Amino acid sequence: MSQTPDSAVHAYIERHRAAFLDDLAAWLRIPSVSAQPEHAPDVRRSADWLAAKLTATGFPVAEVWPTAGAPAVYAEWPSDDPGAPTVLVYGHHDVQPAAREDGWDTDPFEPVVRGNRLHARGAADDKGQVFFHTLGVRAHLAATGRTAPAVHLKLLIEGEEESGSPNFRALVEEHAGRLAADAVIVSDTGMWSEDTPTVCTGMRGLAECEIRLYGPDQDIHSGSFGGAVPNPATAAARLVGALHDEHGRVAVPGFYDGVVELTGQERALFAELPFDEAEWLRTAKSHAAHGEAGYSTLERIWARPTAEVNGIGGGYQGAGSKTIIPSSAVVKLSFRLVAGQDLGAVEKAVQDWAERQAPAGIRLETDFSPGTRPCLTPLDHPALQSVARAMGRAFGKPVRFTREGGSGPAADLQEVLGAPVLFLGISVPSDGWHAPNEKVELDLLFKGVETSAHLWSDLAENWRPAPR
Amino acid sequence: MSQTPDSAVHAYIERHRAAFLDDLAAWLRIPSVSAQPEHAPDVRRSADWLAAKLTATGFPVAEVWPTAGAPAVYAEWPSDDPGAPTVLVYGHHDVQPAAREDGWDTDPFEPVVRGNRLHARGAADDKGQVFFHTLGVRAHLAATGRTAPAVHLKLLIEGEEESGSPNFRALVEEHAGRLAADAVIVSDTGMWSEDTPTVCTGMRGLAECEIRLYGPDQDIHSGSFGGAVPNPATAAARLVGALHDEHGRVAVPGFYDGVVELTGQERALFAELPFDEAEWLRTAKSHAAHGEAGYSTLERIWARPTAEVNGIGGGYQGAGSKTIIPSSAVVKLSFRLVAGQDLGAVEKAVQDWAERQAPAGIRLETDFSPGTRPCLTPLDHPALQSVARAMGRAFGKPVRFTREGGSGPAADLQEVLGAPVLFLGISVPSDGWHAPNEKVELDLLFKGVETSAHLWSDLAENWRPAPR
Repeated sequence: MSQTPDSAVHAYIERHRAAFLDDLAAWLRIPSVSAQPEHAPDVRRSADWLAAKLTATGFPVAEVWPTAGAPAVYAEWPSDDPGAPTVLVYGHHDVQPAAREDGWDTDPFEPVVRGNRLHARGAADDKGQVFFHTLGVRAHLAATGRTAPAVHLKLLIEGEEESGSPNFRALVEEHAGRLAADAVIVSDTGMWSEDTPTVCTGMRGLAECEIRLYGPDQDIHSGSFGGAVPNPATAAARLVGALHDEHGRVAVPGFYDGVVELTGQERALFAELPFDEAEWLRTAKSHAAHGEAGYSTLERIWARPTAEVNGIGGGYQGAGSKTIIPSSAVVKLSFRLVAGQDLGAVEKAVQDWAERQAPAGIRLETDFSPGTRPCLTPLDHPALQSVARAMGRAFGKPVRFTREGGSGPAADLQEVLGAPVLFLGISVPSDGWHAPNEKVELDLLFKGVETSAHLWSDLAENWRPAPR
Repeated sequence: MSQTPDSAVHAYIERHRAAFLDDLAAWLRIPSVSAQPEHAPDVRRSADWLAAKLTATGFPVAEVWPTAGAPAVYAEWPSDDPGAPTVLVYGHHDVQPAAREDGWDTDPFEPVVRGNRLHARGAADDKGQVFFHTLGVRAHLAATGRTAPAVHLKLLIEGEEESGSPNFRALVEEHAGRLAADAVIVSDTGMWSEDTPTVCTGMRGLAECEIRLYGPDQDIHSGSFGGAVPNPATAAARLVGALHDEHGRVAVPGFYDGVVELTGQERALFAELPFDEAEWLRTAKSHAAHGEAGYSTLERIWARPTAEVNGIGGGYQGAGSKTIIPSSAVVKLSFRLVAGQDLGAVEKAVQDWAERQAPAGIRLETDFSPGTRPCLTPLDHPALQSVARAMGRAFGKPVRFTREGGSGPAADLQEVLGAPVLFLGISVPSDGWHAPNEKVELDLLFKGVETSAHLWSDLAENWRPAPR
């Protein structure tokens, strides 16, 4: 009796399970902490290790790409079908700092399996999720009898994600020709829960600015002058107070221009997720839900643009009191953006709005940090449908759809390469990203392998992208 | 030809001018800096010196009163007219810190006369203005042929004013019986300018609070949670933004309850002062006038209650950006109060208002520092009229009226003793209080002596206070 493709994938994975875990453990033992200069040699070692492993996996091209900071790894395995889609997998091989004394039960760089979990720094974020693609592509070949993948497969695994990806955009721009793809698969996210496999369809963008307000040329006495000259701390507060209207909407004119609204289908799919708001508030360590009127909490964090005050300061903040009118105040704002918003237009709208708020006698300066664009792939995009089907086969149940409220370098790939970004991750909220005792669920890790194995066939069968 | 009272006063002062300046210089050489513990013996020496000098001047009672901090000096010289008013003069014998390297042209504790100015720490604030009363009362006796003053004269010269008068209220309460007076004359203020003698008729009071706002139990990620939970920095800003209405009025309900409004006469008198708003803005180091609609700058700083933000802080204030929703924020507010406002009622109104502003999920705590009550003496009060006439005789021109925007311990005297507070000062804005090269104008110093000499006769002639 011949095997079904699914059972062939299963059988291959089962045979290679122990070796796969040994290899992953070897990689996790390399403390590739990009934020700590003393670990720079380890980050380089991690890149070399991965490039060698990808070569051993069968990738005909596997290179370490230097940057102004830590190196990235690039690999390529062309399909024997010239018309197949080209897919670029993104992940990162650097990890967050970790030390036993932070609260780890065991050495963070000595992987250990307890029950059905593999504990180590990087187990979920992101080495485990990069590594499942290596066994995935081998299982894909074994189950299909191919000698090359059904799609043109490329991997870009950066080495500075945990340090804010300072050189990533330049790297992508430099190698845009070789990185060209019809779709980008980001494996650096998670899914809803062990029981609810989900595919993330987009991330919010981010505009950040610091607004400095200047009043008197020095702190002045509030008894002598109070009530008769403008106070920059008051102006700063009124500026922030004017940021939202009474419905929790951002009150900057033009802010919502172009926003891609949620479809009825998306809202219905979000609403089907088993969301427990009380539990979510505990995770948020917050004591109430609050936001834009007319939207649920999930809609607010995934699909609506927002404005937040990340910091405010001015005048005397020490113990007791000091009767001054402060000379200056500062406000740090960040704006999460959703698909359809133009980063530059939002920045200009914020700057114009802020300048209009400054009362006479208050000088205002606004500086924007480099921003991040939002990304979103429509539910009916063929590549997204393939990811959902592949994941559904691996998990044996239909997948649902989420979005990500944060912002990441994926948007640079979308923008520079002009390709839709899809998110394939098997991490769950309890995995403890950036926390002590980070782990990956072994069952889910192998579902990731399985998803990867199914995905390349499904994409090739169901999608013929237009020529780039 | 017999002398007029004025020429007799002049003649007496002229004869004792050199000795008076020598004595004042001796006192100024004592560095009675109350804020610096190493000068505590000097502050005690200053008190002893003054008590001895008052005894030598003729005061039958001159005592050093200990406090929990630096000592005060009390002196008493009863009138031979039992029905005469009792007047308590307030001043202080401690001084601000001063060091040559702060920018002094000469040693701050080695008095020097340059041109018509006496330079030394304390020359104007406040030893010079305390000391003019000693020659004043002698000139009063000499010109009137009396052996005791026309009024029951008391002096209370504290030793901690430059350290915030921490023990003053307790001192006044302890000695309230001996300090009992029909009027308090504060000689620790100034007048409009060399050419425009003025009497100050009141000071603003002060309520101060810190409001702490608590949101999430720790800083949380603004990508994951932004837009869906309340942000305490936003709440702090909105609180401050709600502090004033669009007319620059304080928007705390009940804040203006009981406010004694300016009379038409007071407004007309203020308007007659040679006020140069551009020059005032330079002094305020500010770039626009701004305040309660319908009031002039002088009215705003002297006669209107205000609210100011002295400090605001929350979240990330360092370089660059940090995408957090901060866990907490703090606002420091101060409210200047005018006559008719009740300190306790204002504090309660502010607390209630603040609590009502807190959105769901934000916990708010309000703490008030000890406040200061406002004081104001009506223009038609007989004692105020006497001060104005005495000063007018000394300066040879009618005096005008001002108020003081700041707040001070005078209000404790008003409240504990139940007596109106009048302000008799001859310092001018250029005297450099708390600054290097502090000075007093010698001409004005002797106008102070003259005013003091005339005042006691005028008060006794024109005012028979009701029995206390």
